[in-house]
Amino acid sequence: MSRILREPMVIVNFKTYLEATGKRAVELARKAEEVCHETGVSIGVAPQFSDLAAVAAEVDIPVLAQHLDPVKPGGYTGHVLAESVKEAGARGTLINHSERQLKLSDVSEAVNRARDSGLLSVVCANNPYTSAAVAALKPDVIAIEPPELIGTGIPVSKAKPEIITGTIELVRRVNVDVTILCGAGITQGEDVTAALRLGTRGVLVASGIVKAKDPHAVMLEFAVASKKG
Amino acid sequence: MSRILREPMVIVNFKTYLEATGKRAVELARKAEEVCHETGVSIGVAPQFSDLAAVAAEVDIPVLAQHLDPVKPGGYTGHVLAESVKEAGARGTLINHSERQLKLSDVSEAVNRARDSGLLSVVCANNPYTSAAVAALKPDVIAIEPPELIGTGIPVSKAKPEIITGTIELVRRVNVDVTILCGAGITQGEDVTAALRLGTRGVLVASGIVKAKDPHAVMLEFAVASKKG
Amino acid sequence: MSRILREPMVIVNFKTYLEATGKRAVELARKAEEVCHETGVSIGVAPQFSDLAAVAAEVDIPVLAQHLDPVKPGGYTGHVLAESVKEAGARGTLINHSERQLKLSDVSEAVNRARDSGLLSVVCANNPYTSAAVAALKPDVIAIEPPELIGTGIPVSKAKPEIITGTIELVRRVNVDVTILCGAGITQGEDVTAALRLGTRGVLVASGIVKAKDPHAVMLEFAVASKKG
Amino acid sequence: MSRILREPMVIVNFKTYLEATGKRAVELARKAEEVCHETGVSIGVAPQFSDLAAVAAEVDIPVLAQHLDPVKPGGYTGHVLAESVKEAGARGTLINHSERQLKLSDVSEAVNRARDSGLLSVVCANNPYTSAAVAALKPDVIAIEPPELIGTGIPVSKAKPEIITGTIELVRRVNVDVTILCGAGITQGEDVTAALRLGTRGVLVASGIVKAKDPHAVMLEFAVASKKG
Repeated sequence: MSRILREPMVIVNFKTYLEATGKRAVELARKAEEVCHETGVSIGVAPQFSDLAAVAAEVDIPVLAQHLDPVKPGGYTGHVLAESVKEAGARGTLINHSERQLKLSDVSEAVNRARDSGLLSVVCANNPYTSAAVAALKPDVIAIEPPELIGTGIPVSKAKPEIITGTIELVRRVNVDVTILCGAGITQGEDVTAALRLGTRGVLVASGIVKAKDPHAVMLEFAVASKKG
Repeated sequence: MSRILREPMVIVNFKTYLEATGKRAVELARKAEEVCHETGVSIGVAPQFSDLAAVAAEVDIPVLAQHLDPVKPGGYTGHVLAESVKEAGARGTLINHSERQLKLSDVSEAVNRARDSGLLSVVCANNPYTSAAVAALKPDVIAIEPPELIGTGIPVSKAKPEIITGTIELVRRVNVDVTILCGAGITQGEDVTAALRLGTRGVLVASGIVKAKDPHAVMLEFAVASKKG
Repeated sequence: MSRILREPMVIVNFKTYLEATGKRAVELARKAEEVCHETGVSIGVAPQFSDLAAVAAEVDIPVLAQHLDPVKPGGYTGHVLAESVKEAGARGTLINHSERQLKLSDVSEAVNRARDSGLLSVVCANNPYTSAAVAALKPDVIAIEPPELIGTGIPVSKAKPEIITGTIELVRRVNVDVTILCGAGITQGEDVTAALRLGTRGVLVASGIVKAKDPHAVMLEFAVASKKG
Repeated sequence: MSRILREPMVIVNFKTYLEATGKRAVELARKAEEVCHETGVSIGVAPQFSDLAAVAAEVDIPVLAQHLDPVKPGGYTGHVLAESVKEAGARGTLINHSERQLKLSDVSEAVNRARDSGLLSVVCANNPYTSAAVAALKPDVIAIEPPELIGTGIPVSKAKPEIITGTIELVRRVNVDVTILCGAGITQGEDVTAALRLGTRGVLVASGIVKAKDPHAVMLEFAVASKKG
């Protein structure tokens, strides 16, 4: 895992924002790559499936899918294989984001599919209990994101620090190896520093960067802040 | 929880079998009640939502719903509240059966809704890893059921004992209190005894009883066998 | 169909409001029955699955389920059969409400299951085009409800009359027999009259009645207004 | 629409078969292009999302997505925009395939998203009634595929011709413009000819070509046969 993303890490979820679609996905990924080179901080980017190949061809930072279907090769029209995602150049994948949640058994199968394909698995969870549940499935990374804060600009690391510390406590009883990130409402460097000081190893962010007037500046701020954690 | 179902326990899932719908649901529940009285073994029955009230009005054994929606009172047409299920006379509920799986966050919320309403929560899981994940959500009961054996007559307790022992091992690392059941393919008393000897505290059964020529006889056999566990 | 609900009709969707759950579902249904007797207007009530039997036992007006699973008898834990719904006393069912939408093939199968079981099918749709699509499936009733107005108190019949007239026009090209209702935001008698004057044959309402301080008075107002349509 | 695929047409659904994933998707698309050049018959190919860009960059035949999410730009992690699909080089999309079915309102929205983005919409349906329902949504193409025949090698055009003729009859009452295809079990040229003689304008095929020992030969056979329709 550490070969794919070093800690502390920043993962930028491009969602389906136009600002991070098609050519603009490639441009945003390039800016992330610059910040990575400038600071040495590990930044991963997660564009839409159909943008994966173009992004991965252009940048030398880890590219992740935003979702992984829990299916093996066969008759599953409209789904995407781990094999295809990987061949397109992705090195990891988000799983179970609050905007693309899976049945429990499918979270498990998606983690297995990622592991078998050599993809870093970053599983999202909405609270400390579900985070502990996810920990039992042995993913590489857990990202705790309270859905009520996503996209609000109210940083989880400052507004609800007890969710982060509670998650870490419950997760560690189940799994001592998994990397823990947090997300939701992160828009400033100090939110990143706060997240790390609470015990996480990085952040998962989306609108805070994608929708920023100067995404390069914000990523730079985040990367610098992550060194203070 | 022990006030609702004693260990060892047998839970009969009526599914949507015609043999266990409407008046026939009431009849089958009466037979379960007879066996309970004859043997002292705790038998719960899980009819369809719309049969809950009629069944609960007629028998003095625990009645469970087959599913619980993870919603609070409000605008959720087509869903069913824990409050309604309870007022209809149910004392517990299955959650996340392989034929009615939920997103992870919804399994968590349904367990919370059951707890807050005083309903026994029996959460189903398909393998040892997802069982351990469920254990982190602190339900009253976990029922491990490998989907590939459901309805086959091939008993999980004899065909795949390692799934049961593996489940118990992983679950206990996360949760020492939860009651563990198993199900899938259970049709004979010896399958029940085997399940208990592997360390479970009972079984979740459906077609093995509902589709039997003489359900009373099979339930009696199961109840007697559960005393040998 | 006309044997189950006469035109003009008012269908009251109880949703999962506490004010219309358990004993309070029975009480609200009794008030609907009173209004039906006082005015001769056909009023149907749609409580939760687990309240169907208690409500149907107490009132002599049509009781509808809020949803119908598109399954036949078999292994479908957590689902509800048309057979069970009917035996509980329901005479019809909502299908595809915006809060419980189905895949297209399942809408079709649920309509078929209702028809084969002698249940009145009331299929909800969100716009004129999907209403026309539903019309091709030959349900008994179509209820057009723009989701953005549900629960707002802004009546579709006054705020968006063109949606109703557009629906009627498109539906009639496909199906000349189906009864057309509308819903969303209906809280006053004049909203009902407006709906009927636009060409519908009644309304589907929920919070406007369930959440009213005096549901009997509002239902009476609706019933009287429906005679002016 | 005719600018994207001419009639008669053959659309090859790559599903998630390994034989049509990654580089092998590109290879198979090249063979389709050869057949198109050899015969003048219009052949479209539908690879996975993450293979779209690589395939579209290499061939000069229409490339389709296998599914289209009914979402507009915004916070929809794990989904894919029409804008992204199009920028990757796709010129159309399947919608509502039986292996990736959508709620009715989402079929409608996906058709609208395709139309607004200049993507050819090919909506799948499972029977004549749902085909007529789809016709009301005004897609470019409807593909009728009885799910029970998919992947069987039993051709719908020979085993259930009444489904095709019934579909055409019901669809034409609702929509006189939409192009009608059929699929399921098509493995031989004579199945294609039969489909066209029943009144369709082409076929949607998957395993019959993807899993064939010599896909080029089968596509050639299909293309030649489609001229006899």
